[in-house]
Amino acid sequence: MRILITGAGGFIGRKLTERLLADGTVDGRTVQHITAADLYGLDLLADDARLARVALDITDHVAAAKLIAQGYDLVVHLAAIVSANAEEDFDLGYKVNLDGTRYLLEGLKALGTCPRLVFASTLAVFGGPVPTPPALIGDDFHLTPQTSYGAQKAACELLVADYTRKGYIDGRSLRLPTIVVRPGKPNKAASTFASSIIREPLAGQAAICPVDPDSTMYILSPRRVIDAFVKTAGLPSDAFGQVRSLTLPGIAVRIGDALEALRRIAGDKVADRVKQVPDPKIQKIVDGWPYNFASKRARDMGYEADASIDEIIQAHIEDEHGGRIED
Amino acid sequence: MRILITGAGGFIGRKLTERLLADGTVDGRTVQHITAADLYGLDLLADDARLARVALDITDHVAAAKLIAQGYDLVVHLAAIVSANAEEDFDLGYKVNLDGTRYLLEGLKALGTCPRLVFASTLAVFGGPVPTPPALIGDDFHLTPQTSYGAQKAACELLVADYTRKGYIDGRSLRLPTIVVRPGKPNKAASTFASSIIREPLAGQAAICPVDPDSTMYILSPRRVIDAFVKTAGLPSDAFGQVRSLTLPGIAVRIGDALEALRRIAGDKVADRVKQVPDPKIQKIVDGWPYNFASKRARDMGYEADASIDEIIQAHIEDEHGGRIED
Repeated sequence: MRILITGAGGFIGRKLTERLLADGTVDGRTVQHITAADLYGLDLLADDARLARVALDITDHVAAAKLIAQGYDLVVHLAAIVSANAEEDFDLGYKVNLDGTRYLLEGLKALGTCPRLVFASTLAVFGGPVPTPPALIGDDFHLTPQTSYGAQKAACELLVADYTRKGYIDGRSLRLPTIVVRPGKPNKAASTFASSIIREPLAGQAAICPVDPDSTMYILSPRRVIDAFVKTAGLPSDAFGQVRSLTLPGIAVRIGDALEALRRIAGDKVADRVKQVPDPKIQKIVDGWPYNFASKRARDMGYEADASIDEIIQAHIEDEHGGRIED
Repeated sequence: MRILITGAGGFIGRKLTERLLADGTVDGRTVQHITAADLYGLDLLADDARLARVALDITDHVAAAKLIAQGYDLVVHLAAIVSANAEEDFDLGYKVNLDGTRYLLEGLKALGTCPRLVFASTLAVFGGPVPTPPALIGDDFHLTPQTSYGAQKAACELLVADYTRKGYIDGRSLRLPTIVVRPGKPNKAASTFASSIIREPLAGQAAICPVDPDSTMYILSPRRVIDAFVKTAGLPSDAFGQVRSLTLPGIAVRIGDALEALRRIAGDKVADRVKQVPDPKIQKIVDGWPYNFASKRARDMGYEADASIDEIIQAHIEDEHGGRIED
């Protein structure tokens, strides 16, 4: 099996690449080759005879077509301009997130082999008027994104479904909750603070919490999201039927509760490194994000959320700090 | 007020152009100029000092930009590749229906005046698993199109909403039911027979009904759809809020009931001109079209469906045959 991962230099891309190489199989088929494509971060991937690193600008449709023409059985499309960046730079967001995905789809169609595509979408496809908690946002609720990032991802979901319906690809789109705790550095996503307020204090650094402790976010851990990608890559097409998009289950976490969990797990010295510095701009964006998703379909298909914010923090300490808390 | 109508050579475009010229105002503002853009049919428009005819290929983004740069306060975007044609020619459908709409949006954004846009969408944005009648498809039901035409229109709805949210345009998308009775000739839409089985016999010609009489379609008359476009063009932006798309109300009509109404109104000689010749391909497509829309939001906003299929047929006889039935 030949695999292409776009955005493979990002943290999900790297973890997924390493996981697939470690597993050695997807859906019972041997992983023979993985092309890790990105403009940054590929040097962080460990060497492997089955791994090729490719510098790919997805907005260069000739380069994209040429790469894809090498033939792939599975593509995981993670490359994207993130939310706040796509909001600041409207043209760039459409160029990368919409046009780039179309070039990829056209390349896969040209293969004529109906390759499998796992597309990373987002819960930001929701955002307009939604049911008020405790009512839940069902799997058949309409998409009314309130960011360009969400609009671009929602449009791509439609394309993935249509190319699939036509038999050009076997596509499936995963709508990701906010991933917490992201390893590495803050990025341009408006949600980046949700990881920073846990990651930085555990690494001995100060962090700023720009939102009210009562703010609630719908989150999923890196471990669970990698599990979700691996599971999705291995499911038969029939598992998705006519609806190719799936809202992944997460947990709704109050930011104040996340900070208390950090204090409980890592102690006062670590927790005191977080300072409340309200940012009305971030607060407004976060207030617009729903967190009351039913995600029933995904749960019925066996996708799992984390048990608690405590479990998420513990997993981060295990995966990124070798299980030790250095205060 | 300067108005641009794309697809103005089609029957909705022509009727709308003539209606706006006759009304002389939109939203209390004087209609000073209408550019009627299309590749066909503009010669059918009556001369008017306020009217300019322009041959526009919407897939030519330089031409589109140049035209729009002339400045418009209101654009009605009707130009499209219809359903069966977009299904046959995948590339052409995306080129015209998705790329063409983007060129238009980019042109309007470049104006910097936040012009109003009324975008013709379709109920074909629905189509996957939907609530079974008598349960209704609500205004917040997700879009799972099962045609490329529907997918392209749904993607454009997202763009219209996003460009609106950013303040580049004041856009609104109308999801049209099947328009019956379309005047003129059959087109490449899979739904074209629904008009043919009434229009042709009334014009002294034979017609074929390719579907079972028990097939049901959700329809709206030309009169009502023109009313809906005029009303939409005149509403303030606030009337749509965060959700820029609107499912127009229609009536669910059994094809057998439509044929009986024709017999009741026009007599046996006319009605006997319709022959049942089952076409499994058309039947399958029509079976996939839902007809159980609530359209509550549009009704609450004052949009109206026709009272009955009888009223629709009578209106056609009045508008296209001067009120006389020639058998």
